[in-house]
Amino acid sequence: MNVQALCFDVFGTVVDWRNSIVNEMKQLVPTHDADWARFADDWRGLYQPAMEAVRSGNRGFVRLDVLHRENLNSLIERYSLQDLGESQLEHINRIWHRLQPWPDVVAGLTRLKSRYTLVTLSNGNVALISNMAKNAGLPWDLVLGAEVSRHYKPQPEAYLSTIEMLDLRAEQCVMVAAHNGDLFAAAKQGMRTAFVMRPTEHGFDQTTDLRPGAQYDWVANDFVDLAEQLGC
Amino acid sequence: MNVQALCFDVFGTVVDWRNSIVNEMKQLVPTHDADWARFADDWRGLYQPAMEAVRSGNRGFVRLDVLHRENLNSLIERYSLQDLGESQLEHINRIWHRLQPWPDVVAGLTRLKSRYTLVTLSNGNVALISNMAKNAGLPWDLVLGAEVSRHYKPQPEAYLSTIEMLDLRAEQCVMVAAHNGDLFAAAKQGMRTAFVMRPTEHGFDQTTDLRPGAQYDWVANDFVDLAEQLGC
Repeated sequence: MNVQALCFDVFGTVVDWRNSIVNEMKQLVPTHDADWARFADDWRGLYQPAMEAVRSGNRGFVRLDVLHRENLNSLIERYSLQDLGESQLEHINRIWHRLQPWPDVVAGLTRLKSRYTLVTLSNGNVALISNMAKNAGLPWDLVLGAEVSRHYKPQPEAYLSTIEMLDLRAEQCVMVAAHNGDLFAAAKQGMRTAFVMRPTEHGFDQTTDLRPGAQYDWVANDFVDLAEQLGC
Repeated sequence: MNVQALCFDVFGTVVDWRNSIVNEMKQLVPTHDADWARFADDWRGLYQPAMEAVRSGNRGFVRLDVLHRENLNSLIERYSLQDLGESQLEHINRIWHRLQPWPDVVAGLTRLKSRYTLVTLSNGNVALISNMAKNAGLPWDLVLGAEVSRHYKPQPEAYLSTIEMLDLRAEQCVMVAAHNGDLFAAAKQGMRTAFVMRPTEHGFDQTTDLRPGAQYDWVANDFVDLAEQLGC
């Protein structure tokens, strides 16, 4: 096989962004009886359109923290957050730096790290992914991805520049993600693929990415299962 | 103080490149009774001129592995390495990926990591620094520096792009190096500075960087001393 590096999608694959946002908002804004799950979905819903402006070339590269904040600003009225000050809003925007991993993640990564180089290949910016790692104890070897390549996934450059910095051939790198679209794009560049099931990323009535949409090299229930399958 | 990140020079500051090269060459080419310390000095001596071609704009950015290999090629005759095959030469070039740390490094970094983000700000390319870390157990949080910024130190862009990716202010970042020139350049960009003594980097008759050349924020005998001084 000669696999050398595992390249991880982060939001949804490594961390449970939806429940993390709900739990933080309940604590940060206890006076509001809002539907924070819908808030999380709305905030995340603005993510792809915001990156699309960059991908299309209508806008130069800006880091995800900036897009998250613009998207948060557009939700202030709908969720009655007008009374919050700037530092509170910034603290809310930084929830993305404090997202919590799925329960299997730290154990799985720790095993995988003994044998492979663990790299993030996320659309999150370097400081976001690094702060998240310090906070949650995620043992990455390298943080690469969108900000370093200045291209958002699924653009080919995001995958190719990561592979190039690793100084590996594409087939020595495995893209690990809970999303078929990410794996399709990685496979197109010659990477190997591992689909990890995260059937409640969008809540219990999730309809997307419930099963592998192609013949992937590995399909795993979680990161500990992936470590088993990869011989760690 | 509000220091958040420690940015490390690597060659000479973290790893003992000279003795590492000598030890590997003795084992890899036992048939040659060459002066491997002089070989190491000669190889390292070609490092700054090679980068200078990139810094001056005479050449586009190329990663350090490529420069190391070109420099090695230019030493083949002088050290009678003509009988070695391509794979042996490539293995010799990769000595830089297998350099050994000074004895205080792993203990010092492990303590510093509990409180600060540990980032490499080296002229080594990402794969070189990452392979070295896996091999020697160096617990970096992030590998940034020359290849990511596409500028070699001491050009300002190398420091500035690292600070920008960390999403910090310059004064929240400490440049840690055994070389006055590196610290001067970092201080010019507003970074704090820590000088670490490595008085035998160039052997026992070293004449350069034996003492701090300016008023640095910290001066340390080694990484464990630095950890003490930084309250870790």
